[in-house]
Amino acid sequence: MNKEQLIKEINKKKSFLCIGLDTDISKIPDHLLFHEDPVFSFNKEIVDATKDLCVAYKLNVAFYESGGLKGWESLMKTIKYIPEDIFTIADAKRGDIGNTSKMYAKTFFENMNFDSVTVSPYMGSDSVEPFLEFKDKWVILLALTSNQGSADFQNITGKDNNMLYKNVISISSKWGSDKNIMYVVGATKAEALIEIRKIIPNHFILVPGIGTQGGNLSDVAKYGMNKECGLLVNSSRSIIYSGNGVDFAQKARDSALKIKLEMETLLP
Amino acid sequence: MNKEQLIKEINKKKSFLCIGLDTDISKIPDHLLFHEDPVFSFNKEIVDATKDLCVAYKLNVAFYESGGLKGWESLMKTIKYIPEDIFTIADAKRGDIGNTSKMYAKTFFENMNFDSVTVSPYMGSDSVEPFLEFKDKWVILLALTSNQGSADFQNITGKDNNMLYKNVISISSKWGSDKNIMYVVGATKAEALIEIRKIIPNHFILVPGIGTQGGNLSDVAKYGMNKECGLLVNSSRSIIYSGNGVDFAQKARDSALKIKLEMETLLP
Repeated sequence: MNKEQLIKEINKKKSFLCIGLDTDISKIPDHLLFHEDPVFSFNKEIVDATKDLCVAYKLNVAFYESGGLKGWESLMKTIKYIPEDIFTIADAKRGDIGNTSKMYAKTFFENMNFDSVTVSPYMGSDSVEPFLEFKDKWVILLALTSNQGSADFQNITGKDNNMLYKNVISISSKWGSDKNIMYVVGATKAEALIEIRKIIPNHFILVPGIGTQGGNLSDVAKYGMNKECGLLVNSSRSIIYSGNGVDFAQKARDSALKIKLEMETLLP
Repeated sequence: MNKEQLIKEINKKKSFLCIGLDTDISKIPDHLLFHEDPVFSFNKEIVDATKDLCVAYKLNVAFYESGGLKGWESLMKTIKYIPEDIFTIADAKRGDIGNTSKMYAKTFFENMNFDSVTVSPYMGSDSVEPFLEFKDKWVILLALTSNQGSADFQNITGKDNNMLYKNVISISSKWGSDKNIMYVVGATKAEALIEIRKIIPNHFILVPGIGTQGGNLSDVAKYGMNKECGLLVNSSRSIIYSGNGVDFAQKARDSALKIKLEMETLLP
């Protein structure tokens, strides 16, 4: 999916919601455990119940990988099941030397047809560039993450008085463009978006951390939104685990709808 | 495997060689393509031919992941096949918020019984700690990588005059000990080991980048070795792709033996 198509979907749905399918078999409703593929059954119902409310699904690869071969099967079935007009994110936080990053890009872009993959910037340009060679595919680079430990290194101030995450953004933004790079900025660090928007006024920013992690949606929109919206705001656990009975998908829809309605009021 | 056991193996074999099983189906000998699982057949022969020469095998997860379900099967068969007295590394470069890193740790330590996993430090302490909770398992944290792009961020100098990679080492070394954390320092940056050894005199260092990437073994030993050796030096492509005929495993052994014999002369 390219940038114009994504913006079109945001305007059409009046939503910039991304739903995180961090599906943990130990947290899904009991009745699904009798299904052949409980994780896929869960995802299928969540997608059916929420696909008109969100513009993106983010699949946290760790949750599938930890299920072994069955987990990978659930991941592949889920990505195939998501409608083509919804942006898909492999939240995999990959990144390695060139010949290895190429393999990861092949896995997520060719084999599974994800629109994007999250990548860690630590190894630098040649670890990211192999992902940028695919047409209409995206790298979503970690900049300022939502967790507490993010301060350990991302906030180290360089001799140029910039914190590391700012250098990551300004340097890496030259490796591609706002048509193939997005950045991760945690909702728990919403005020940092003011300075970040000065460096990258036009890039999309993926914002995890509202809901369970405690970030605030209106702050994110206030500090991070640009004239094309430029935001994908993710919520995972606080949507998908809203209910634990046979009506779990309806409960998830209710939670997603609440966020979507707030988003309608925040859009430009 | 714990530190004492690893040191014992190094002394017994007079080797600190790690062989990288970056097995790419497009590069293995043609005759193996008729096997049921060509990648596993290749790995099996390489392990049989080299297991007395090396103390560790590093499996680059990207190469398996890119093969889909069949690739994961090859990975799982290979890790099971490697003898218990050889240290195993899942070269996966993972790292995410706490609940997700926990899933990755489960995947590699519990489901597949790897001794260690490579982790990217960018997200900080709480992304690494879940890996440190497993007894006799190791985190191998990226510090100064062998690729050219490593300079982009790892060499950014902070206000304290230390480059980022030095801060990564000194800060993260407090999250665990030399009994559960190792560091990646590329052989192409061997001279940096002088300063790194001042920060972590006792930690093991995993050194990729000799062979195809151009690093020099004697420099690595000169600058990085401590009294217990403290090094695992990896070579992948220049060993495993030494031959392309039916005698590929013997050719790989010849290449591994050459490095092992040089290592004998370098050990304390």
